Amino acid sequence: MSSSSAPLKIVVIGGSAAGPKAAARARRLDEHASITLIQKDPDLSMASCGYPYYIGGVFDDRNQLICTPAGIVRDPNFFEKAKRIEALVLTEAVAIDRAAKTVTCRHLPSGETRVIPYDRLVIATGATPLFPQVPGTDLAGIHTLHSLGDADQLRAIRDQGQVRRAVVVGGGLIGFEVCEALHLAGIQITVIEKTDCILPFLDPDLARLVANHVRANGADIITGNGVAAFLGEHGRLTAVKLDNGTELPCELAVVAVGVRPNIALAQAAGLTIGEQGGIAVDEYMRTSDPDIYAAGDCVECTSLITGRKVRAPYGDIANLQGRVIGRNLIQPETATFPGITHTGICKIFDYTVGITGLSARQARALDFDIETATVAGLDIPGYMHGKLLISLMVAERGSGRVLGFQCIGPGDASKRVATVAMAIRGGLTVEDLGNADLPYAPPYSLALDHVIVSAHVLENKLRGLMHGVSAAEVKQRVDSGADCFIIDTRSPQEFEEMRLGIGETLIPQGALRGRLNELPEDKDREIILYCKISLRGYESAAILQAHGWRNVRVMEGGVMAWPYPREK
Amino acid sequence: MSSSSAPLKIVVIGGSAAGPKAAARARRLDEHASITLIQKDPDLSMASCGYPYYIGGVFDDRNQLICTPAGIVRDPNFFEKAKRIEALVLTEAVAIDRAAKTVTCRHLPSGETRVIPYDRLVIATGATPLFPQVPGTDLAGIHTLHSLGDADQLRAIRDQGQVRRAVVVGGGLIGFEVCEALHLAGIQITVIEKTDCILPFLDPDLARLVANHVRANGADIITGNGVAAFLGEHGRLTAVKLDNGTELPCELAVVAVGVRPNIALAQAAGLTIGEQGGIAVDEYMRTSDPDIYAAGDCVECTSLITGRKVRAPYGDIANLQGRVIGRNLIQPETATFPGITHTGICKIFDYTVGITGLSARQARALDFDIETATVAGLDIPGYMHGKLLISLMVAERGSGRVLGFQCIGPGDASKRVATVAMAIRGGLTVEDLGNADLPYAPPYSLALDHVIVSAHVLENKLRGLMHGVSAAEVKQRVDSGADCFIIDTRSPQEFEEMRLGIGETLIPQGALRGRLNELPEDKDREIILYCKISLRGYESAAILQAHGWRNVRVMEGGVMAWPYPREK
Repeated sequence: MSSSSAPLKIVVIGGSAAGPKAAARARRLDEHASITLIQKDPDLSMASCGYPYYIGGVFDDRNQLICTPAGIVRDPNFFEKAKRIEALVLTEAVAIDRAAKTVTCRHLPSGETRVIPYDRLVIATGATPLFPQVPGTDLAGIHTLHSLGDADQLRAIRDQGQVRRAVVVGGGLIGFEVCEALHLAGIQITVIEKTDCILPFLDPDLARLVANHVRANGADIITGNGVAAFLGEHGRLTAVKLDNGTELPCELAVVAVGVRPNIALAQAAGLTIGEQGGIAVDEYMRTSDPDIYAAGDCVECTSLITGRKVRAPYGDIANLQGRVIGRNLIQPETATFPGITHTGICKIFDYTVGITGLSARQARALDFDIETATVAGLDIPGYMHGKLLISLMVAERGSGRVLGFQCIGPGDASKRVATVAMAIRGGLTVEDLGNADLPYAPPYSLALDHVIVSAHVLENKLRGLMHGVSAAEVKQRVDSGADCFIIDTRSPQEFEEMRLGIGETLIPQGALRGRLNELPEDKDREIILYCKISLRGYESAAILQAHGWRNVRVMEGGVMAWPYPREK
Repeated sequence: MSSSSAPLKIVVIGGSAAGPKAAARARRLDEHASITLIQKDPDLSMASCGYPYYIGGVFDDRNQLICTPAGIVRDPNFFEKAKRIEALVLTEAVAIDRAAKTVTCRHLPSGETRVIPYDRLVIATGATPLFPQVPGTDLAGIHTLHSLGDADQLRAIRDQGQVRRAVVVGGGLIGFEVCEALHLAGIQITVIEKTDCILPFLDPDLARLVANHVRANGADIITGNGVAAFLGEHGRLTAVKLDNGTELPCELAVVAVGVRPNIALAQAAGLTIGEQGGIAVDEYMRTSDPDIYAAGDCVECTSLITGRKVRAPYGDIANLQGRVIGRNLIQPETATFPGITHTGICKIFDYTVGITGLSARQARALDFDIETATVAGLDIPGYMHGKLLISLMVAERGSGRVLGFQCIGPGDASKRVATVAMAIRGGLTVEDLGNADLPYAPPYSLALDHVIVSAHVLENKLRGLMHGVSAAEVKQRVDSGADCFIIDTRSPQEFEEMRLGIGETLIPQGALRGRLNELPEDKDREIILYCKISLRGYESAAILQAHGWRNVRVMEGGVMAWPYPREK
């Protein structure tokens, strides 16, 4: 199609992530194409995931969010000079005429419209933040964090130092990134989450541990409670009122309850919208019109784990998709984007919170027959000052295929999530992970890395060698007065320093064989064992099973993964 | 085989890594088995990879190398109490009688021998450090770093502070770990390496960059020169004499030139020894005698990449193999160890140096038809204070299968090596890696992680979109006065701050389209382009190719990966 006589005409709507990536790659593959980029915002190629760190003062130069690694701001002049791409900023695409193959756009400051012809079109219109439909949303002091303009405003609030109390509406990734940023600015924060649990991609015990960490850092969290109204005086926010009537006085509210894909333009042009509400695309990132591609927050894509359509409004995915389109624009049907593995990560104070694949809850809701393992341990050896990681790995029974991995804690969870993300992409099993040859040296890992140990515990559970019980289940048994015998298998010194106080008996693992007479005579009574991380709990369980006790369970993750109050 | 009436008799020879792991797992799977562990050294379950950090003073308590995560020293009493394993230390296994199914061992202090019957036997006899066969090896002051006793001696040398100059013989992983440890102790170090290149698992350009870093930290390196003799006075080392006659005065030499597997016991018992000199085992880690297993530094195992037998004397592999044996001891032929992916890592001053899979050199020597990409970039965004990574990815042409990945630099190379290690295990292609859904947030990664960008560059090379040239090749062309036209495509400011000084012309990428008239008229003349990391180099190359130049190459990794002297 791209002949030397008639340069290919490419139009890209959207200049944030997927759009510029597609345009730049198309340019590298075809020096002669005419490429026009239409961007509603004043800025181009913004590193939007960096906004919370700009707001929090990790860096001060706003241009770092919009410049190349070599320090050149990506403005229309840069696009023209470096990439020979015409970038029209403050310009909104208002209509696509598929028959005429044109895009009509309007320059927002002047109101002038222009009709641009295309041979191939890219839609990368992104998403819009959701907003609770409650009274008071027009008050001053209510923000979202979506555009660079939003970031500018929140940064100014930080710099002015006038706001004392803020409410973050929404306990997801962005909510907690904003929480930390504002906390760094000395603002007292409450995060409110409508559902019962923060970070809903995590399973509940891990989410509780993260919540404990947030509270330990001085920010508050309220779950199971949505916003009923924003209250104010003289047009300014003074409080957030919750569903249960509680009023939280504050001068600032930041709403981060998710986004909806911007599909109006595509819909008006008659393009197919998918079941998840995003623009439908095939593996070439092509819409229902073969000359129109779409990518980024406005599309839906395929889950490589479930095969289902999902939305994945993340900056890295947008870039990957944009790159695929860049090639297909010039060489149609040569590049594919097979799908995602549900990977995400977030820094929350001193914790990293990461996931790849499905949580246990998600997997069960999708009717997978699963087994899980919760494992606590250090990222590197104690003598190298290792830090704690707590993870939950999910696998399919039968096949043993790894379906998901959550990892949190002060340790290096990012590496472990990346490792398992690649294992999931490769369709690897728990046994494959348990035999993995990973880079080992004391500054980087235990001899058997946390990922490998997690796989070993899960393999033991899949084979019926270990019967686990979660901290939540133990708490429930204790609270309901269930007749179970609980053994802490740690040393007397560890017990003295800190204990759970749930009616446990201290029997150090090394002493267990000599103290079997202290155990319940009823061999069917439930016995729950744990230690610091539950390796000794597991070893103790094996001893009891060998001596005839039939209902022996190991509390997974041990004391380190216990998210409830302790005695000391 | 393990009936309740006659407990299974298990004997394990070797108490360092694979042996205790096998014994402990067997115990968890069979509470009634009789398990005896025979260990020549005084210590058990030593974290031997931690020795350099103990020597360097990262921690001071030697017991941290031999204690459990809960702080309990793994001595015979611990093994008896916690695991009901009889651990015989300072005891050497001297003979295996396969017909009688017994092991004869001797208690070293007393000289007493004992004959221990076994149903199943594990050989985990480890390896012995190699030593150059030159005059003077009996002088005081020459050490290896293999046993905890060796570590104790080197730590004492550090603490005494008498040694001023030391020579490390051997430029491999352990040599450089020792180099750093002694350097931390204030000792002036020279590392000598017989071959032309340090760290022979790296390709030369990356090895040169590591060598630059070592020298920048004040340690010296001499390559292409082995030890001719150790020189001394009054029985004490005074200098190391090299093959070229140079004498390096020193009070200490540490030899780290590799290990050879301890196979004498197995060989004497008539077990099959493999082509690589290690004990031959099958996927169950079983020797040629079905009742005898072997693991760790004394065996050879399978490369998952080449299918060939290799030796992999690493602590993590020993542990993985020991775990497989632990299960097979109780439930024969139920667990397998499929093989390794050649993964290794090392901290060298502020650099991490890691590899998984094959280097380009190794792959070519094995007759793989390969393509490579050298990529420089940050681990996390510049605004988050990202640090440099330089990597070299190797893939098979045709299939696109990833064969190897080296990654070095002050950035977090460990995560990237782990990620690619898992990709190699999954048999993934460059295209799979280029579409990977990895955990992205600014504290952890660029929007497109270094691993993904490496895959993109390699994919471009595999598809012929980019023609690369290595720094070494450019240096050779420059030194030989080859007729090539070299363009630095960075900004005038970057050029002013630092430049290569190899006869290059500065034409900033954004200005290139307007300055094509400055380029060679001969469209077949070789043009070499680069920038800081060579993205702008690549973009510029695309422009030149589109304008008819036919011999355009991008210097991979740009200025950041240039390992030779620069002009400023």
